Amino acid sequence: MNRKVISFIAVMTVGLVLWFIPHPTGVKLEAWRLFAIFAATIVGVILKPFPMGAVAIFALTISVFTKTLSFEEAFSGFGNDIVWLVVIAFFISRGFLASGLGQRIAYTVMSLIGKNSLGLGYGLVATDLLIAPLIPSMTARGGGVVYPLLKSLADVFTGKSHDPKMGAFLTLCAFQGTVVTSAMFLTSMAGNPLIAEFARSQGIQVTWMSWAIAAIIPGFISLTLVPYLIYRLAPPTVRKTPHAREMARDNLLKMGKMKGQEWIMLFTFFLLMVLWIAGQFWGIKATWAALGGLCILLLTGVVRWKDILEEHAAWDTFIWFSTLITLPAYLNRFGFMTWFSERVVDQVHGANWMLGFLMIILVYFYSHYLFASNVGHISAMYAPFLIVAIALGTPPELAALTLGFCSSLFGGLTHYGSGPAPIFFGAGFVPIGQWWRMGAILGFVHILIWVVCGGLWWKILGLW
Amino acid sequence: MNRKVISFIAVMTVGLVLWFIPHPTGVKLEAWRLFAIFAATIVGVILKPFPMGAVAIFALTISVFTKTLSFEEAFSGFGNDIVWLVVIAFFISRGFLASGLGQRIAYTVMSLIGKNSLGLGYGLVATDLLIAPLIPSMTARGGGVVYPLLKSLADVFTGKSHDPKMGAFLTLCAFQGTVVTSAMFLTSMAGNPLIAEFARSQGIQVTWMSWAIAAIIPGFISLTLVPYLIYRLAPPTVRKTPHAREMARDNLLKMGKMKGQEWIMLFTFFLLMVLWIAGQFWGIKATWAALGGLCILLLTGVVRWKDILEEHAAWDTFIWFSTLITLPAYLNRFGFMTWFSERVVDQVHGANWMLGFLMIILVYFYSHYLFASNVGHISAMYAPFLIVAIALGTPPELAALTLGFCSSLFGGLTHYGSGPAPIFFGAGFVPIGQWWRMGAILGFVHILIWVVCGGLWWKILGLW
Repeated sequence: MNRKVISFIAVMTVGLVLWFIPHPTGVKLEAWRLFAIFAATIVGVILKPFPMGAVAIFALTISVFTKTLSFEEAFSGFGNDIVWLVVIAFFISRGFLASGLGQRIAYTVMSLIGKNSLGLGYGLVATDLLIAPLIPSMTARGGGVVYPLLKSLADVFTGKSHDPKMGAFLTLCAFQGTVVTSAMFLTSMAGNPLIAEFARSQGIQVTWMSWAIAAIIPGFISLTLVPYLIYRLAPPTVRKTPHAREMARDNLLKMGKMKGQEWIMLFTFFLLMVLWIAGQFWGIKATWAALGGLCILLLTGVVRWKDILEEHAAWDTFIWFSTLITLPAYLNRFGFMTWFSERVVDQVHGANWMLGFLMIILVYFYSHYLFASNVGHISAMYAPFLIVAIALGTPPELAALTLGFCSSLFGGLTHYGSGPAPIFFGAGFVPIGQWWRMGAILGFVHILIWVVCGGLWWKILGLW
Repeated sequence: MNRKVISFIAVMTVGLVLWFIPHPTGVKLEAWRLFAIFAATIVGVILKPFPMGAVAIFALTISVFTKTLSFEEAFSGFGNDIVWLVVIAFFISRGFLASGLGQRIAYTVMSLIGKNSLGLGYGLVATDLLIAPLIPSMTARGGGVVYPLLKSLADVFTGKSHDPKMGAFLTLCAFQGTVVTSAMFLTSMAGNPLIAEFARSQGIQVTWMSWAIAAIIPGFISLTLVPYLIYRLAPPTVRKTPHAREMARDNLLKMGKMKGQEWIMLFTFFLLMVLWIAGQFWGIKATWAALGGLCILLLTGVVRWKDILEEHAAWDTFIWFSTLITLPAYLNRFGFMTWFSERVVDQVHGANWMLGFLMIILVYFYSHYLFASNVGHISAMYAPFLIVAIALGTPPELAALTLGFCSSLFGGLTHYGSGPAPIFFGAGFVPIGQWWRMGAILGFVHILIWVVCGGLWWKILGLW
């Protein structure tokens, strides 16, 4: 309660101070006022005196009452296609979990490659990867599919006659795997479409396809290395794990044959993958494809309307997401971003962009120790850092994507830094010291892989 | 299931036939196609092969995929201020019920005027009236406040030693009272803002204030007559009811003093009433006021963010409402409405508008025997009937408001015709024959009061 009050006072102070101090020359009064509201909103999103959605409602209300934005402007984000992409993806992911297909994929992977503990680690990562493109909530993916699987695997091994370190190994694999898969698809983390929209406001088109292609090579390298590294650094004492395959097979037997709803879900999954990958050639945007997929699931009853209304995470995201793209969009339109980037260009003129961009990446990445959510970090720092990077001379698409990937990868640093972190940490297998040590090591490995191997790959792709 | 399939085929048939038949000259192809989608949507809303929200999603998806509307056009309704007014009102009403203020008002009214059975009837109606301006869901108002009160009152009297007709009397009073209060405020029925938006698309401004002023006189007359008429036509045999006042007083005692949250809710209630009534003089629109009220409730914790996410009726309304205003808005923009009204003007040229408008009212009102929801009826018939009425020469604002009031009043005809009808009917006190007989009689009384007394009042107001 006390923390809440202090946070609220901090938010109000930021907003009021910025509102009332003289605005810099070169910035219009309305732009500066909107910046004051936006800055207070970001502080609110980070400190959370109220849930993010409520903070967003306050921001919109203040914008409207102070006439900084008209009602139509303030609420325009609710018709934005990127916002709807993520909202609809939430609805679709509900079908993934409710139909049982998610669990079936998990058990199938385990029955195939779960014969030893390293295989189990890779199995968790592979499961996550298979379902990542359709589940934009890291929390739903981690908490809804991977975590239950991990729990049932760990329960087999952490009984008194078995290995207590198995739980720790599996938890770290699952968690760091989710961090990587989140970075790999536009639709595998709620913040990714936010990034795409911020990039769009800087004139950079990020599509589902361009994101996936750029991420695929460094993503696979990361996913290949992560379980192995954890296996070396936090080894489980049990190596052979016949029980795990048995458990997976038993569960598959219990599930029986693929049900009709699972087939429909699988079909929709493939259809969406095809449309997201190739839709641009037929003029079908990602959001249209998602709409079509949702209609199939609704028509066939895989997702019921009731499920949609009860998908609270989607409605929550809808509110804060719209707000967090609308405010910067109007900052942009009011000339604030241009003013800011002109300032930056003056400052960094003549610097080496490669060195500069590397610094930007490191600062952006490691400042996540200070943040309790990906989205808070993204909305506070993504757009200005992107502008600075471009001002330095970094090729815009390279800058947009690299910072975008970092926006997921930094989620692995701490036990509070992203949605699934508290879930996996809360499982209790990994002591906090080990969690942070592994976070630091793997964070460094991620940076290395994505900058070096990613950099080479993006050179081949012609991004720079 | 069978009914569902037949309904779905009917919807598809309407859509496909209209889509492919040659479009009338004078109508652009895009307008005609949108009309085909809209007509199928309305049939879908009425026959409900899927819940209304799902039908709306299908309609938007088809509009986008056929390129009848761009994504931005199809989803523009989600930023509409009238849509947000009703959504926010749903959130606010949650505070009304959760804080306990709704129940306290109910018991207070009962302890004041519940000393005989007629008083109880008036008490139910008065309770409803007091909370109507802030609860746009008839179902929430009827089901959440009035019905529980009715049940606890009826339980006192329908025990074996008491009067079985008391329940019937109270049910009819409560139900017909809700029907009238729904007609009285822009924010007392979810369909009313839809009406305001349809009127706006015909160039008629309906504000919270203009609605309330026009409705107040006929509304009060209806509310005054309804319990008395029911008392004569379906008399309870018990007249004195000291138990009821005791029960109300006991419950008030149990509730204790007004809690802080109730005070805040009461303050917000008054603030909203003031802003809705007088806000136009200060340039504060109804939706802004609602936003402000919601912020107060969120800041003080009367409504928590979690409550908002769980207010499923609001999200449901959000989806279908946006769709049902967007499709006709673009029909209008594409020239379809102009074309339609020009046709009508040709037909009705030279007719007497008073006689014609009376016919329109009667047809609009009594066709509700065919509808299972106010909203279905409104979206199918309100806009065309308004256009016809205006074409006849009816003063536009008079036409918009009168048809608007009918859109609530016709909800009292049957036991399926509006949200709260199945709830009250389901209480089981009123046999179906009596329900329909009373519906027919009171429906006629409503028409008489609103046309004759309302007509005089609207003459004084200068509406015609």
